[in-house]
Order: sequence, then structure tokens, then C-alpha cells
Amino acid sequence: MPLKTGRGACAPPFLVMDVIAAANARAAALAPGEPGVIRMEVGQPGSGAPAGAAEAAVRALQGGMPLGYTEAFGLPSLRARIARHYADRYGLQVPPDRIAVTVGASGAFPLAFLAAFDPGDAVAMAAPYYPPYANILTALGMKPLLLPCDGSTRFQPTVAMLEKLDPRPAGLVLASPCNPAGTMLPPDEFIAIARWCETEGVRLVSDEIYHGLSHGELREETAAAHSESAVVVNSFSKYWSMTGWRIGWLLLPPDLLRPVECLAQNLFISAPHVAQVAAEAAMDCGPELEANRARYRRNRALLLRELPRAGLDRLSPADGAFYLWADVGHLTNDSVAFCARMLAETGVAATPGVDFDRERGGRFLRLSYCGPEADMAEGAERLRRWLGRA
Amino acid sequence: MPLKTGRGACAPPFLVMDVIAAANARAAALAPGEPGVIRMEVGQPGSGAPAGAAEAAVRALQGGMPLGYTEAFGLPSLRARIARHYADRYGLQVPPDRIAVTVGASGAFPLAFLAAFDPGDAVAMAAPYYPPYANILTALGMKPLLLPCDGSTRFQPTVAMLEKLDPRPAGLVLASPCNPAGTMLPPDEFIAIARWCETEGVRLVSDEIYHGLSHGELREETAAAHSESAVVVNSFSKYWSMTGWRIGWLLLPPDLLRPVECLAQNLFISAPHVAQVAAEAAMDCGPELEANRARYRRNRALLLRELPRAGLDRLSPADGAFYLWADVGHLTNDSVAFCARMLAETGVAATPGVDFDRERGGRFLRLSYCGPEADMAEGAERLRRWLGRA
Repeated sequence: MPLKTGRGACAPPFLVMDVIAAANARAAALAPGEPGVIRMEVGQPGSGAPAGAAEAAVRALQGGMPLGYTEAFGLPSLRARIARHYADRYGLQVPPDRIAVTVGASGAFPLAFLAAFDPGDAVAMAAPYYPPYANILTALGMKPLLLPCDGSTRFQPTVAMLEKLDPRPAGLVLASPCNPAGTMLPPDEFIAIARWCETEGVRLVSDEIYHGLSHGELREETAAAHSESAVVVNSFSKYWSMTGWRIGWLLLPPDLLRPVECLAQNLFISAPHVAQVAAEAAMDCGPELEANRARYRRNRALLLRELPRAGLDRLSPADGAFYLWADVGHLTNDSVAFCARMLAETGVAATPGVDFDRERGGRFLRLSYCGPEADMAEGAERLRRWLGRA
Repeated sequence: MPLKTGRGACAPPFLVMDVIAAANARAAALAPGEPGVIRMEVGQPGSGAPAGAAEAAVRALQGGMPLGYTEAFGLPSLRARIARHYADRYGLQVPPDRIAVTVGASGAFPLAFLAAFDPGDAVAMAAPYYPPYANILTALGMKPLLLPCDGSTRFQPTVAMLEKLDPRPAGLVLASPCNPAGTMLPPDEFIAIARWCETEGVRLVSDEIYHGLSHGELREETAAAHSESAVVVNSFSKYWSMTGWRIGWLLLPPDLLRPVECLAQNLFISAPHVAQVAAEAAMDCGPELEANRARYRRNRALLLRELPRAGLDRLSPADGAFYLWADVGHLTNDSVAFCARMLAETGVAATPGVDFDRERGGRFLRLSYCGPEADMAEGAERLRRWLGRA
């Protein structure tokens, strides 16, 4: 007899994966000499892990380390190194035993959500948003509560928006810099939201995965400095350029330590061992990582200069991460079709906004600028010709 | 104000982790010349990944592969290699697009459970059982339904037991060979259960992580050969000796492919890239892996001969995996205290049965025989002296 599938099976796909597949297919079908595909759809640095991280992994492999399971919360040396990072970057003392090494930020969210929330609980977040926030919550039976945001608040929530929520949600997911808009909260706003959550009994989950990649005047704030109860999520995928290694961490409040540890033992056993070794080494690869960041900044400056000349002049403030969120409402209200035509006619791949905002994303594109510098210039030039401003 | 924690936060700890920590502490505190700790508590091969797997990882790292995210279901070449494994080992043709590479078997279970079941659904399994089966189901709001099994059915369920379940459960988790008992279902029983599930609309989740590690007369059966709807879970952690690499797979029925893909995109993005490269190479490391297996067999033979002389003579049939499930009801009914005393007084670490069977596990121990051969002989000898049969 035919079997049912679970309600968790209804998670919407992550449309960027379809764009990536289409861009791959186009790249594979190129005739010799034909111009290549410009990858502005991917959310991962093309540069790979820093050399020192790869070398540490090679040393572990060639030295015959058995690389078995680690403790559920990770190698003690990596946890201590991450704790030191909080002192170095934020001037914050963090005990290493509050650090839980995870299978990327992706592996961190289910642990945090299961430990902090119950099925049926509402968890608020700005829209547009990183789709797995909502999709993981939904798969776990929780309810994403979207707060529509726009350029007037840098696509970020405000205390005033949160005050209107009655009843209070169980949690709030905050990201500064955020994906897809690349915007940040001003420090005083960030701190006010963290304190509001604390006072109102709302569990703050602060996604700090794009920390280290801010480009403007706004200072990066970690929620751990302003809240006793916040959960901080971070990852080696972005600043440390280690996407495929699947390694991230949680900085946990004391009340969630044991619950998350028990969940991690059951759901993950441990994060990948060799990736933990590489990640620890990556934290000492400052110059290479800063060179990556300088490249993102040059790419950003180039696109902020050239895209308006192509007619893409409604861009969110590019505070951080490596994304531009472009309002293309004067060109289309179907960003999926627009991106497909753009890829077919110019070879430039971008992500349609509906991935990040089902209601209003038909008018937006996300352009990623973590690729090679030459590609950014070429991409902007192709768009300029295509949009008829040549 | 103090914040609540979620019901998911109530996952029981995995007691073996406490035993591992105690064994580590004892090993660290040893005086020079003092006899070492015999590790019979760990469920992981001490041998590490086969050399060819580590070499492939080193080549990828030194060759400058960026090692970014892969597709959610993994590298096409690895999926094809796993499909070929079904032809080689079971004579079964499997299309590569039904293989989903996962973050270990641990990462496979939440995907399978969320795709196949709903919160509130009952999922049956034999007791004793691998604790994360029940703990993951519970964290996801599903209900483990324990079928108490004993030596009379090799600690495995039977069709007769399943027939008594009214209403039918939504699913059944089956493992042959199983952890902790190390027992297998006879092939005709396995096939009968797979067919019963198919007929009765019960989703079979077949954990085949210990395939390749059977030592007796019973043939290993994959559920995929006997059911159109079964989900098969497997991993590179045991036969391929790659625990810390966090790499496994699902062989999915067609109706669950797209649901699991969407869930995997959101919950994991992809399995670790370098581990996928290493795993593909591991599948061609037959001689080294068979040498590991031969060692487990020698260890098994030694313990089956020596443990009865130590007074541990009530052992389950050691069909496969690398575990002995020892009934110690003539010695204790508190296996946690017994294991603690055994570790303190003999330096032999074993896992108390309550980890695997809360009701009856006070009378059982799990002894793992994947360690070095010399340790097995030394462990048996220490137990013989300790239990007073010297």
C-alpha cells in the first residue's frame, strides 16, 4: 500500500539550488571561446579554506591521527581557541565550556531551536530572511513569524516592530550583517533589541555568521555581550572561507548547555574531526583572510559604482556580508523569470528574491560579490549592455 | 526574566559518553608503569580511515580543490560509486539518483524521520536499541514504541510481535546486525518483516550501518531488495572505519526523494566535501578493510572463548557488528554501578546496558571488540581475575 509522507516533507526547496544547477548546466554546455558564466548567485567564497587550514588537515592526515569522533561539543583546543576569538575581536571573556562546535551553522540551528522552543512556538524574524531559518523551524513544527522590513530600517527589525507583537513570540532570529540584504543594525539598535528580548522573555538567536565581513561604519556587536540568555550562532563558512568543511559553533547561555549537549550527542555525535583541526588553524590565518576581505570590499565598491550605470540603482546599504539586495521592481515583478532570462541572455547568474521573501521577493534580486574581481567587472558590463544603457 | 527551554531539551544523555569521559580521565591519571585502560566501551574502530581514503583527502587538499558545498545529495561520483556497491555486494541494481549522501547515519535519521513521519506518530523498534533512534524521534515529537526482545529471538523483532500492534505503527526501525546486541535476523525473517511492513503500510527504516561486519552463517540482506517503500540508512563509520569524518548515506524510495532533498538543503546544505572525496576512495580499499574485519573476527573468537572462563557466559549470538551483549544478571542488577566499579578496579571500560534498554539494561553490559587484539586478551584476563575465577 502507498505510504504517507510526513508534514516535515513539505519544506520548500531552496531556489538558489535550482539557479546553481542551471548555471552549472549552462557552463557545461559552453562552446569553446564562448564567454563564461558569471557566478553572482552563490553564497560561498570561491577562494577555499586558507592555506594554513588545509596544511593542518594534511598534517593530521599524514601523521596518522585516527580522526575518530570527538566529544559532542568538539575538540577542547578548538573550543578554547574560539573563546579566545571573543576576547580578541569583541573584548569579551567567554568560558570555553560555553562553546559548542557544530556541523556548520546549519547543524547549529536545529540544536538551538529544539533546546529553546516547543512545537507550535512562534519565532520572529525580519523578511527578507535566510530561508533555512523558516524551513528548519517549520520542519520542527515551530512557526516562523515574519516581520516585513524594507529599506527604511535597513531591512532589519526594530524594537517598535517587536513591541507590536502580542502575544510575544518565543524567540527572535536576528542577523547583522544579514543575508540576503547585506545590511546591519546600528549598534544602539542591536543592543536595544537584545535588551528588549531579555526583558520580555523572548529567546534571541543571533546569527553572527557574517561577522568579520562588514565594510562600512557600523560596528559588529555580538549578542553575547548584551544578553545573558541569547544563543549565538557562528560558522567557519564565510569569513574563514570554509563552506564545504561543515564546521560552525554555538555560544550558549548556561541554561541551554546540557540540553544542547544531549541533543548533539544524539543528532550529530560530533562535528567532522579533520574540519575541527583545520578550523583551529584557520583562526591563525589572519593575513590571507584579510586579503579575501579586501577583495570583497573592492568587488563591493566596483558594483556600487557600476550597477547603477546599468540601471540597477536601487541597492540596499551594503554594510556587510557579500550580498547586494537589488530592488528591480522597475524592471520586473517576476524575479524568477527575470533571473532565468538574465542567465540565458547574458550568462550572469543571480538569485531571485522570492527565495528570501515570498511576498515581495518578485521585485528583488540577490547579487553575491564573493567571486573573482574580473568576474564582477565583466558581470556589471554584461548587465549594462543587456539593460540597454550601452 | 528566566526563559523556558523546549521539550526537545529533555533528550536523555547517551551514557556511553560519560563512560568514555571516565575512561579518558582514568587514562590521563595513570602513574608511569601502571597498566593502561582497556577500551571496550567505544563503538568506533581504533584503526582510522583506510590509507587510500586519507591519501585521496590529502590529494584534494594539496591540489587546491576549493572544497565548497556540494549538491545537497552529494558528489555525483560518490553517489554512483555507492550505487555500484549495491550491485557488487547484493547483486542489486540501484539508480545513483536514489542515493543521498548524508552527515553520517546521525544526519540521515532526522531526514528520514521528518520526511516519513509526523509528530505524534509511533515508530516501533526492538529493545535493546541504539539510543539515538528513540532520542531523535522524541526530539522531533514522534513516539518510539519499544518491542522488548530477548535471546529467544536474537534480540530482534518478529512478524508475530508486529502483528500484535494495534493500531499499526507508522514505522519500524530495523537493524541487522544490530547495536548493542550484535545479533542478526535470519534472512527469511528479515524478508518476512520487510514484506509485512510493505503490506501493512508501515514505513521500514533499515539501519544497515553494520553491514560488512557479519561473522557467522547469516547472510546480510538489504531492505532495498525486498521493499519498494523502505528507507535504507548506511554509513562509512563502521566497515569503512571513518567515524570522525561524518559521512553516510540514505538509499531512498522514490516518494521520499524530493522531500528529503528539500530537507537536506535546509538542514545540512551538504555533507562535508573532503569526507565525500575520502569516502569514495575508501570504497576501493578492500584489502585493508578486510584485514580490519579479520581482526574483529579474531577478537570476537578470543572473547567468546575467554569471557565464559571469566564468568561472563551469558552472551548473545555474536552474529555481527563488533559488540557482545552480556547478561550479567547473576552478578548485578545495577549495570551503571557495576561498570563504574569494573573501570575503577580493573581498568576495563564497558557500556552499561541501561543506555540501550532502560527497563532491563540493569542486567546487561555491552562489550565492544573493535580495539587492538592485545587489549582484548588483556581485558578478558583482568575480568577473569576480578570476577574471582583465577
